[in-house]
Amino acid sequence: MDTWTFWIHILGTIAFAATAVLAVAPKGIDLFGATVFGIITAIGGGTIRDMILDVPVFWATDQSYIWIAAGTSVVTFYANALFTKKYINKLVFYVDAIGVALFGIQAVDKVWVLEFALPVGPIALGIITAIGGGLIRDVLAGRPTLLMSRELYAIPVMLGCTLYVTILEFFPEYKIIGSMISILLIFGMRAAAIEKKISIPDWLLIKAKDS
Amino acid sequence: MDTWTFWIHILGTIAFAATAVLAVAPKGIDLFGATVFGIITAIGGGTIRDMILDVPVFWATDQSYIWIAAGTSVVTFYANALFTKKYINKLVFYVDAIGVALFGIQAVDKVWVLEFALPVGPIALGIITAIGGGLIRDVLAGRPTLLMSRELYAIPVMLGCTLYVTILEFFPEYKIIGSMISILLIFGMRAAAIEKKISIPDWLLIKAKDS
Amino acid sequence: MDTWTFWIHILGTIAFAATAVLAVAPKGIDLFGATVFGIITAIGGGTIRDMILDVPVFWATDQSYIWIAAGTSVVTFYANALFTKKYINKLVFYVDAIGVALFGIQAVDKVWVLEFALPVGPIALGIITAIGGGLIRDVLAGRPTLLMSRELYAIPVMLGCTLYVTILEFFPEYKIIGSMISILLIFGMRAAAIEKKISIPDWLLIKAKDS
Repeated sequence: MDTWTFWIHILGTIAFAATAVLAVAPKGIDLFGATVFGIITAIGGGTIRDMILDVPVFWATDQSYIWIAAGTSVVTFYANALFTKKYINKLVFYVDAIGVALFGIQAVDKVWVLEFALPVGPIALGIITAIGGGLIRDVLAGRPTLLMSRELYAIPVMLGCTLYVTILEFFPEYKIIGSMISILLIFGMRAAAIEKKISIPDWLLIKAKDS
Repeated sequence: MDTWTFWIHILGTIAFAATAVLAVAPKGIDLFGATVFGIITAIGGGTIRDMILDVPVFWATDQSYIWIAAGTSVVTFYANALFTKKYINKLVFYVDAIGVALFGIQAVDKVWVLEFALPVGPIALGIITAIGGGLIRDVLAGRPTLLMSRELYAIPVMLGCTLYVTILEFFPEYKIIGSMISILLIFGMRAAAIEKKISIPDWLLIKAKDS
Repeated sequence: MDTWTFWIHILGTIAFAATAVLAVAPKGIDLFGATVFGIITAIGGGTIRDMILDVPVFWATDQSYIWIAAGTSVVTFYANALFTKKYINKLVFYVDAIGVALFGIQAVDKVWVLEFALPVGPIALGIITAIGGGLIRDVLAGRPTLLMSRELYAIPVMLGCTLYVTILEFFPEYKIIGSMISILLIFGMRAAAIEKKISIPDWLLIKAKDS
């Protein structure tokens, strides 16, 4: 893993640990529980990815991810009390959008190098890495998962990962700038969804007729 | 994997993707979310099985399973609006019964060939493959899982897988006809449970005394 | 695996299968469902651990764990009706405390021998092995998971596993007595939490300000 991807991963870890603590905080949780949620959310998606890839889980090779997630969780735990609920709710969305964008693209990179199930593999595992930790967090916390929400969430990740796979395939010489653009695409779509309340259009919604 | 088992797997994939979309539809879901649920349900159980077996996940070797699950999900998503809820509810049960029967027996076949933890392995992983995708679907969708229901569900799968393991052990020359009979046994028990409202008898039910 | 660790694992399996059946019983469940929950809870945490370690799952090598979990589940299923709810509730906590202590320490031992991600690996996987089966059980049964509770639960496991790792590192000649002390530490803290209603102190609790 090169330096660029390494830093993407570190920043994503910080974002996911922070967002996890903020997300479970309204339910009332202790420092240790918050840290466990922070770590699980930050490393959960990547752990599933590595188990599917059948490679050593990334945090076994480099334990710094766990320490960074733990440290971020503790800081967020105490910083949390400084803000109002409304402010936190919005902050959670943005920090989460950063994490999702970084983790999705970093995963595509890892899966691409391993040439796993190209071209579907990098995209599928990019989505799993980006949203897997959050899904585990929500299931363990008893919250509705994002898959049941009308919000634009997994779609931006899929589009960004698909764009990056396309760049890696046809313009490998623009890898770094391409990864930046893909990250910005995911983050931008998420930010638009948060600010403009853009949600899934009606014709893409399903509702069974009442009998 | 021989042709027979391959077609069992394809049909099971179609059944599971369709049933997943129909099952989450009443909660209101968009096309992309429905497709994600269709894919997860169709490949979830087999993915857990392959991770436990420590073999490459089946959809990495042959991505057609993902495409078939995705295509089935999209078709089911739009077809869903044509039916009434009552009709759909019944259809879900039957299509699901087909998927469960096919996936359980196909998994026994795969585990048997790998000689993994005989004889318990094929039966345990047959059950996991058959119901794992549905369990993940229900947990992510916030629905009660089938394990908490009184309905005959896992028991038919267990009996069918046990029958097929017995046939493979003692009458390997009747493998194909044996797999057909085992599939019919599972499907028949499920259909009987759906039609006759057969549920677990009282003496097999547990209830703690009120103190 | 030496004899001492083997027996720790067998006793933990019995404790976890029994506690799982008692925990899901109040919701009303049948014999087969109870047995499935007993097996999943008893082998779930260790299965996740082995998949992360990328070693063969322990119950594939020695199927006796599955049979012991199944047998314990059936006995507990029928024995359950003999007790009042209040008595059972308390019993569940104590039997579970034994299982958690035994599984945590046994897992540290296994991970230590494999030299996986020392020193964080044995502690992280000790916690996962100890609470993973219970988490899966609660998620599948639709119960709130222990991570959302204020009770002292994961903290004792973490402290006990950390103590045992310290003993293995600096005083390997006191391995057996050290594992006993670590087990007693976890069980003692859990028993104190159950009896004295000790819970997480307020300053370790997070609550977002009402805006």
